[in-house]
Amino acid sequence: MLKKIVIFGVGLIGGSVALALKQQPQPPRIVGVGRNQASLQQALALGLIDQAETDIEQALTGTDLILIATPVAQTPAILRTIRPYLSAEMVITDAGSTKSDVMAYAEAELGAQLSQFIGGHPIAGAEKSGPAAAMPSLYHGKNVILTPDHRTAPEALNKVTHLWQQCGAVVSQMTPQAHDEVFAAVSHLPHLLAFILVDDLAKRDNAECLFKFAASGFRDFTRIAGSHPEMWRDIALANQAALLQELKRYQTAVSELTHLLEAGNGEALMRVFTHASEARIAWGEANPQRKLQ
Amino acid sequence: MLKKIVIFGVGLIGGSVALALKQQPQPPRIVGVGRNQASLQQALALGLIDQAETDIEQALTGTDLILIATPVAQTPAILRTIRPYLSAEMVITDAGSTKSDVMAYAEAELGAQLSQFIGGHPIAGAEKSGPAAAMPSLYHGKNVILTPDHRTAPEALNKVTHLWQQCGAVVSQMTPQAHDEVFAAVSHLPHLLAFILVDDLAKRDNAECLFKFAASGFRDFTRIAGSHPEMWRDIALANQAALLQELKRYQTAVSELTHLLEAGNGEALMRVFTHASEARIAWGEANPQRKLQ
Repeated sequence: MLKKIVIFGVGLIGGSVALALKQQPQPPRIVGVGRNQASLQQALALGLIDQAETDIEQALTGTDLILIATPVAQTPAILRTIRPYLSAEMVITDAGSTKSDVMAYAEAELGAQLSQFIGGHPIAGAEKSGPAAAMPSLYHGKNVILTPDHRTAPEALNKVTHLWQQCGAVVSQMTPQAHDEVFAAVSHLPHLLAFILVDDLAKRDNAECLFKFAASGFRDFTRIAGSHPEMWRDIALANQAALLQELKRYQTAVSELTHLLEAGNGEALMRVFTHASEARIAWGEANPQRKLQ
Repeated sequence: MLKKIVIFGVGLIGGSVALALKQQPQPPRIVGVGRNQASLQQALALGLIDQAETDIEQALTGTDLILIATPVAQTPAILRTIRPYLSAEMVITDAGSTKSDVMAYAEAELGAQLSQFIGGHPIAGAEKSGPAAAMPSLYHGKNVILTPDHRTAPEALNKVTHLWQQCGAVVSQMTPQAHDEVFAAVSHLPHLLAFILVDDLAKRDNAECLFKFAASGFRDFTRIAGSHPEMWRDIALANQAALLQELKRYQTAVSELTHLLEAGNGEALMRVFTHASEARIAWGEANPQRKLQ
């Protein structure tokens, strides 16, 4: 049972873990660490954390688990900072959208203590960010991917699996590479495709007219184009290899579609659209949308 | 004031016009015509129409306005069928997603009576189809585009404008070509892009894994991939020229993005993503989503 947990980055992601843990019968003590003091104080005031700490040694003393819930780019510096204070039973995990790069950071910074680290990625989010956006139910029924390898201590895997299960999540495992390829395909590529469509439309002379008559299809397809540009630049660069594969593949699909349309090949278009429509409808039925409480 | 209207195709689109008109203080008599007798009888039973008619001459006698709300491909045959019974004061309009082809059908079938025809496109829809899906509020606050040209009688434009205003819609005008280009960009292209993404993912060896971990970004981006494949094949073929222009343009955008990512050009990616994100957020604020009653 967790007695104490340190969360780096008490925003939507880290804060929601904190709130979920606080709903447990015997919640751990939760210490928040971050660069933005105002944000940390807000997290404290909102009851997400029990203590806001700036002294890393103090924060880590007696802790069971360290959750890094900051932007991935901060991971190496955080790992470097905590390493001197890591005792053998402490477990470290993260919540980043990419895993190969995080594992490389962990390898570089933790040396032999890499066994105490396990990469994690909760597949959950909401439009708002920051501590005020945190929700105890954010992870209910959601998937979390952990990316252990042969060096990961079984205890680390168990502790972090249990942590996410306490948040109501369903925990799966993958290699970091498999993770990055899967999410390049189903998340990162769609975000980039939406960004470039809106960027292009907004550049046109008739942009005002286009946006005036854009309706529900545009709304849904481009919703993710309203995402945080800095975070997505970082994800794109972090997952460059897998994303370039996806872009190349998608380029081919656009090309093939273009040829079918040029040829007026209604039968082939029908096959593509039917295949897609059936797959999407089946997925929608298997994954009904839930409203977050 | 409309005393009688004939609707070809009393489904979601035609049926919702009927219901909107029935909410007027002195609604016109509404006659439904269609190929599917069961569906027409259902429309009658649901109170969408006052009469289900198979005899075209009977249907058209005394009518002020004829609304063609069938799939666009049926338009030429309908125009051919009604032409012998068109008196000079009758106005004909449609509700198809493409307008250049519809205008060409009207030119081919109506001869001098083309002046009585005005193309129309209500920018509204819902997931369900058929008479049971019809809603009187479907067009409230929605855009309708009319595509008159120099040959269109002012009376036709006025009558049809008024019809859609009675449905609660905001009526605009465009040339058929401008209409088809606008909707190629903001509606037709996104649908095709969503179809080919889902088609490709569903073909892969690891499709099951991909769909298992696809989440909210995928959900929104691909919602329109669940659209009716036959309707979209028809739209793609009908709007072939404008769509091919869009596909070519998008192909270039994908190519440029690929080069930026290959080069690790974070600054340029940031510019694209920021431009898109700002535009999409601004659009979302200017066009808040309303729930249909």
